[in-house]
Amino acid sequence: MPSWENNVRKVVPYTPGEQPKIRDIIKLNTNENPYPPSPKVKAALDCTESDLLRKYPDPAVSLLVDAIAKQYKVAPEQVFVGVGSDDVLAMSFLTFFASGRPILFPDITYSFYDVWADLYRIPYETKALNDSFEIVNRDYYAENGGIIFPNPNAPTGVLKPLAEVEDIVRRNRDVVVIVDEAYIDFEDGEDGEIPADSALNLIGRYENLLVVQTFSKSRALAGMRIGFAVGSEKLIRYLNDVKYSFNSYTMNQTAIAAGVAAVEDHAYFAECLGRIKATRSRTEEALRELGFSFNRSQSNFLFVTHEKVPARELFAALREANIIVRYFDKPRIDNYLRITIGTDEEMDTLISFLRDYLKK
Amino acid sequence: MPSWENNVRKVVPYTPGEQPKIRDIIKLNTNENPYPPSPKVKAALDCTESDLLRKYPDPAVSLLVDAIAKQYKVAPEQVFVGVGSDDVLAMSFLTFFASGRPILFPDITYSFYDVWADLYRIPYETKALNDSFEIVNRDYYAENGGIIFPNPNAPTGVLKPLAEVEDIVRRNRDVVVIVDEAYIDFEDGEDGEIPADSALNLIGRYENLLVVQTFSKSRALAGMRIGFAVGSEKLIRYLNDVKYSFNSYTMNQTAIAAGVAAVEDHAYFAECLGRIKATRSRTEEALRELGFSFNRSQSNFLFVTHEKVPARELFAALREANIIVRYFDKPRIDNYLRITIGTDEEMDTLISFLRDYLKK
Repeated sequence: MPSWENNVRKVVPYTPGEQPKIRDIIKLNTNENPYPPSPKVKAALDCTESDLLRKYPDPAVSLLVDAIAKQYKVAPEQVFVGVGSDDVLAMSFLTFFASGRPILFPDITYSFYDVWADLYRIPYETKALNDSFEIVNRDYYAENGGIIFPNPNAPTGVLKPLAEVEDIVRRNRDVVVIVDEAYIDFEDGEDGEIPADSALNLIGRYENLLVVQTFSKSRALAGMRIGFAVGSEKLIRYLNDVKYSFNSYTMNQTAIAAGVAAVEDHAYFAECLGRIKATRSRTEEALRELGFSFNRSQSNFLFVTHEKVPARELFAALREANIIVRYFDKPRIDNYLRITIGTDEEMDTLISFLRDYLKK
Repeated sequence: MPSWENNVRKVVPYTPGEQPKIRDIIKLNTNENPYPPSPKVKAALDCTESDLLRKYPDPAVSLLVDAIAKQYKVAPEQVFVGVGSDDVLAMSFLTFFASGRPILFPDITYSFYDVWADLYRIPYETKALNDSFEIVNRDYYAENGGIIFPNPNAPTGVLKPLAEVEDIVRRNRDVVVIVDEAYIDFEDGEDGEIPADSALNLIGRYENLLVVQTFSKSRALAGMRIGFAVGSEKLIRYLNDVKYSFNSYTMNQTAIAAGVAAVEDHAYFAECLGRIKATRSRTEEALRELGFSFNRSQSNFLFVTHEKVPARELFAALREANIIVRYFDKPRIDNYLRITIGTDEEMDTLISFLRDYLKK
């Protein structure tokens, strides 16, 4: 090995879900929205001026920050925007988990957490979900350097009630607690309103709470890379300091324009959420009849296991039929499939394939 | 201070050049291109499908990587793409400067280098430019953990000849040497061809060499945030490992489409470079007549000092006249202005203002 290689930071990267380039597949593996973004997004992109492209974007991303702040009824100083929630979370790890004490997160969770911890050399401990795949509150009462968990959790889809979330935040006021709400908009309840169990409802009461959300799922903009965090002004200031120490201009002009248009078309947002939740209910019913079991999902995916056929086998059979779902070859969850809620037609194709396959 | 704040990484962020929101100003402060990007960029954005926006982009950014590789006659495995060259450089610091030994860069240079070093707790030493603002090769023969310098240097605009660049790379084979070529396309020579002093000419001969460039200046796409690095396959692999440990999908769909269109319109690229270089010559001549002195610029900006009037005073007077240039209140360069090359009309306005002002 040449000597320069000794100086290199070596890491084991996160493996993203497959993005196959072939058409005519049913892609239920990365929890994308089956519907296009608001038509106003397309309109905003179409009227982008060339002159805007040659100039640096606003480093403070004010238009988008203001739109999000207005939507969630917080001050612009409480909002941070990044290149997808992965960017927001990565910067949050770097900013808030610098104590040297281990941070805590669930053993079964978003598989990027341990990657970021390794990248930034942050010590961590994982806490086992219980047998119902629930996060156990008392595990998070231990001394720690910070806490992060998704709600609903991924890939399980299990939602933690707000009172339990608040309990963790309240008992850990000496560290930052990050609630990663990539999927919270899909919680049952009035479409498009702040869901009952979102930690956004706690903002203003806990200075150490950071809530992270994304435009990639509920707002159908995975392709534009927009995520955001809401927290106390102090937390957001620290986060911005790190962002400005990394890359002053993270959000390009089109992402800003598309993001603003998406937030402002609230009616369309609510309508798509309603459709996805309805498809989820129908799909749950059909899968249950076919012998699958799962927790009640409050996200845009189902995390299912079959009473007889191993998940690995089903995954391969579906792949063969050009239906791609997600399979995690990991302890405790290696007999589960994570299936994104697609359109009604896509789910019908999935169900009819499974019906035939399971009959064999 | 609440105890959670003890765990926070505290940094002094980079201050980007002002992005004023008022119109009708002449903006010569952030080295943007005065011409719009290729019309093919606008066309590419206009035909972005909504369906593309709801899906995650290709994490490998293959279309853009391939276009760049083809343009510079290297393998796609030798190209890395990021959210502006700041993103590429930040990840390179994190990836390649992990030895614990101090990295080296000039005392007068791009002011983000020490910010990144502080962010990632990388020790560094700066080496003084000589009185002609040149980087002195022998300063970089010392034991170190890595080297980075811009060529041409910023904000001085001084170009280092390729033989001297190669000397630094060759004498430091045990570390990674990064040549930051944000402005190299503006070097004299045939417009749009790889400039004679670009370290791209050394690729394939030194495994420890990373060349970083950007679409923000010569390709008029500051608003889209596209930067890239070219290096040995091994370097690029390490860089990608860190990228995939940070954010799998950094480049959004529109940035990919715009970037490909910009690279492919080579004729337009060459034409704009020619115009900017011609305006630069005219401006140099006019400023010299007005009593300014400066090194021969090989970039899209001039770094000038006046024989009588302090730079600080000129900066304020220009600001008053809605002409914004860049002033750095730093040792050794606090009597200089950095002036971006704009259109001929913009430079005429600048020069005529200065002519009147200096007469007083």
